[in-house]
Amino acid sequence: MTKQENRQEAKKITFNVSKENSFSEWYSEIVEKAEITDLRYNVKGFVVIRPWGAMLIENMYKIYEKELQKTGHMPTFFPTVIPEENFKKEAGHVEGFTPQVFWLKEIGEEKLALRPTSETAFYQLYSSWIRGLADLPLKLYQRANVFRLETKATRPLIRAREFLWIEAHDAFSSKEEAEEQVQEDIAMTEKIMHQKFLVPFLPMKRPEWDKFPGAEYTIGSDTIMPDGKIIQQPSTHLLGQHFSKAFDIRFQDEKGESQYVWQTCYGPAISRILASVISMHGDDSGLVLPFSISPIQVVIIPIFNEKNSKKVLGEAEKIEKELEKAGIEAKIDSRESRPGEKFFFWEMKGVPLRIELGEKEINNHELTLYSRDNKEKLKIKNKNLAEEIKKQGMKLDARLLERADKKFKDSIANCKTKQEVSKALENKKIARFSFCSVKKDGEECAGFIEKELQARVMGTRHDKKEKAEGKCIICNKKAGEIVYAARSY
Amino acid sequence: MTKQENRQEAKKITFNVSKENSFSEWYSEIVEKAEITDLRYNVKGFVVIRPWGAMLIENMYKIYEKELQKTGHMPTFFPTVIPEENFKKEAGHVEGFTPQVFWLKEIGEEKLALRPTSETAFYQLYSSWIRGLADLPLKLYQRANVFRLETKATRPLIRAREFLWIEAHDAFSSKEEAEEQVQEDIAMTEKIMHQKFLVPFLPMKRPEWDKFPGAEYTIGSDTIMPDGKIIQQPSTHLLGQHFSKAFDIRFQDEKGESQYVWQTCYGPAISRILASVISMHGDDSGLVLPFSISPIQVVIIPIFNEKNSKKVLGEAEKIEKELEKAGIEAKIDSRESRPGEKFFFWEMKGVPLRIELGEKEINNHELTLYSRDNKEKLKIKNKNLAEEIKKQGMKLDARLLERADKKFKDSIANCKTKQEVSKALENKKIARFSFCSVKKDGEECAGFIEKELQARVMGTRHDKKEKAEGKCIICNKKAGEIVYAARSY
Repeated sequence: MTKQENRQEAKKITFNVSKENSFSEWYSEIVEKAEITDLRYNVKGFVVIRPWGAMLIENMYKIYEKELQKTGHMPTFFPTVIPEENFKKEAGHVEGFTPQVFWLKEIGEEKLALRPTSETAFYQLYSSWIRGLADLPLKLYQRANVFRLETKATRPLIRAREFLWIEAHDAFSSKEEAEEQVQEDIAMTEKIMHQKFLVPFLPMKRPEWDKFPGAEYTIGSDTIMPDGKIIQQPSTHLLGQHFSKAFDIRFQDEKGESQYVWQTCYGPAISRILASVISMHGDDSGLVLPFSISPIQVVIIPIFNEKNSKKVLGEAEKIEKELEKAGIEAKIDSRESRPGEKFFFWEMKGVPLRIELGEKEINNHELTLYSRDNKEKLKIKNKNLAEEIKKQGMKLDARLLERADKKFKDSIANCKTKQEVSKALENKKIARFSFCSVKKDGEECAGFIEKELQARVMGTRHDKKEKAEGKCIICNKKAGEIVYAARSY
Repeated sequence: MTKQENRQEAKKITFNVSKENSFSEWYSEIVEKAEITDLRYNVKGFVVIRPWGAMLIENMYKIYEKELQKTGHMPTFFPTVIPEENFKKEAGHVEGFTPQVFWLKEIGEEKLALRPTSETAFYQLYSSWIRGLADLPLKLYQRANVFRLETKATRPLIRAREFLWIEAHDAFSSKEEAEEQVQEDIAMTEKIMHQKFLVPFLPMKRPEWDKFPGAEYTIGSDTIMPDGKIIQQPSTHLLGQHFSKAFDIRFQDEKGESQYVWQTCYGPAISRILASVISMHGDDSGLVLPFSISPIQVVIIPIFNEKNSKKVLGEAEKIEKELEKAGIEAKIDSRESRPGEKFFFWEMKGVPLRIELGEKEINNHELTLYSRDNKEKLKIKNKNLAEEIKKQGMKLDARLLERADKKFKDSIANCKTKQEVSKALENKKIARFSFCSVKKDGEECAGFIEKELQARVMGTRHDKKEKAEGKCIICNKKAGEIVYAARSY
């Protein structure tokens, strides 16, 4: 514990806002109370991420980057600025992103954009780096801040004009390999975002009118917020040869012929995933953080009086050291506040496990372990403690995952009519229904849904083939697809 | 080893440029050959950092951030953009940095700068976060990219318009504590940059005319490049109450009186420290990386033919696993190139240790260990291998440090006259001499040195009191200080 923390009292002890009834207020309050973000920075749409949020984001980056490296990606750092000429090279890309670009004041002749994403930065060099089959596949990523001139209302971590993400840019010698990469990306979202950060999602193939600017197709990962609005998490794009043709990225194939590479890109926005983690698991007492990413995994609250403080604090320190040695992030709260105040404080912060340790416990060689998610207490033996804590941490994560999965599954409503869709949306659900087409000719019906029901057609399931039945609920033509739609952030 | 690496042959195998005779060429060549950077990005002064460079930078960040956290700093992320009004609040700061600022095109009324440094972003919020003694000290840092419109020639990692750094911003209730922090910062530069990254430096108190814009005083860490030019590494600044008055950052003291906080800031530029690591230790065969930060610490070269490949490769994999289990970054190079080519390739990349493993070695339960720095080979027993490798890695780092320290010490020349200073500079040395004053009244003499000798007065030693003797070598007035001067980047 640092000096500054020790001197603070557990000031902001209670949090009590109903997440169910007023999610928007709950969210705005908890990110400030738990000191995840601060909105008082004096530039529209830009927020400050405070230590508790920054440590969470660092842990999430670490886990994601490790997995990217495991799958053969190497790190790189590209410049934050992109020249206008690069932007203009891919027609769909420039059209899609131009309204969202922050431009720098010209420096001499140079017209520079702040990257909203980095395809047009990376791919210029890919054309220098890729010559033959030996240079492929090329799989690079960077952790980076990106900038988008959002015009909709910004919300901390959910939508901001600057956010923290990872972007992976891969190039292959065949379309087949590129499509395999799309699968690998989705599997990574499943492995990391779902299994580690405990955020369930639907992998949705976006309709033609909603794909990434410059892509052949886009698979978005949609998850839901407690207010029934969906939020897009990591998306992966089959860029095909659109960019390789625009940037002249070619390789010599086995026959010595020059071919354009096939490309994919993948973009997990770490700060936005944190928004989902917070919203998915929190409760009316504050944050509930997964054991896998919490900056403090176990807080130790010593319960002592003047007489036994030395004994109790000594034992607490022994436990802290033992846990840290086993790679568990543990912390003693030895501030002078009352234990009850500390309990509320760390519950609000979302720390998954709490050890309560008093003289009685020490004498009995046991301690009290409190789990943040179900608020249950366990007496556990002070033996093989690190193993036991890890086990309990994993159990806690498993419970969070099960609950989130169930809730997510329950949030999908099968609808047969427009009225049922409307009702599902009112009930904060994702509507699943028959729809004419996700090609260009379905855009009108989607526009109708957006206008009349304020919902977005998310697309079709990428993880399974769903057979359309009956008619499009909007235009009554023969249905070509089963689609999902919801209100969205 | 990733698929893409396996398919590549050890293409760029030889590097042979004289560092001693043509450092500038050597540096430009090695950063490209070793794939640290790529200069072909089409924006002036912005470079791409390639995987070998990015992995080094990540390792250096990890070590630095760990130490910052140990000394009670917490991470945070502030926006990249700073409003003009914040900039203008501290008169010296705005004057010093304005010429270097990249401005965004106005968005409505908002005039935004890309941060060249973040005092004026952080401190606006410090005034909200700090209320009383319980909030102090406040010690925060961020890893960040910063932007400076350099007008001098840019060089990869040495001087660029965007670079990667850490900035720590600390606030205290007394000047005493703030000055202790300055000492802690310098101690951190010593512990990390010198002892871990093996880059020696002189802690120099800058002359009055060369301090950080808005600071009471600045301690820079100057190190030397093989061409005799100095380069400024982490600097730490006693900001005093200049910014707290400008941003109204106050706390209630014990008597209930409102006081302005005392501040410091510290800025290790990781990408620039990497430039020093490369320049300090490399030789005519390429990079020589410290064991402490090399992305690959040991490369394993199996020497095999068609008959024994299975046996040799199997043993190589066993060794790789054993080393990785012990936390050593090991990698087998199983490409099809000849062993000699691989030797040259990894020497160029700077990998500190190389294991050569053939059938003979396997049968004798031993292997050949090659050290990159002194190019010596050792036969070592294949027992307690991980321990032995760690020991050899530490020995290698100790040799690099000793050599760098000796060279650095030898590069300081005591001078009695202007002619001797001139000669020292010609001999690529730092000149140490008597000087009138490092207050404002010495600026004219310093200007003279800059104009006539193309050298910069670095300031006075902060780590020890050096007693001035005789007269200023420029104006002949009574000397008030011993100063150091050198050509500089």
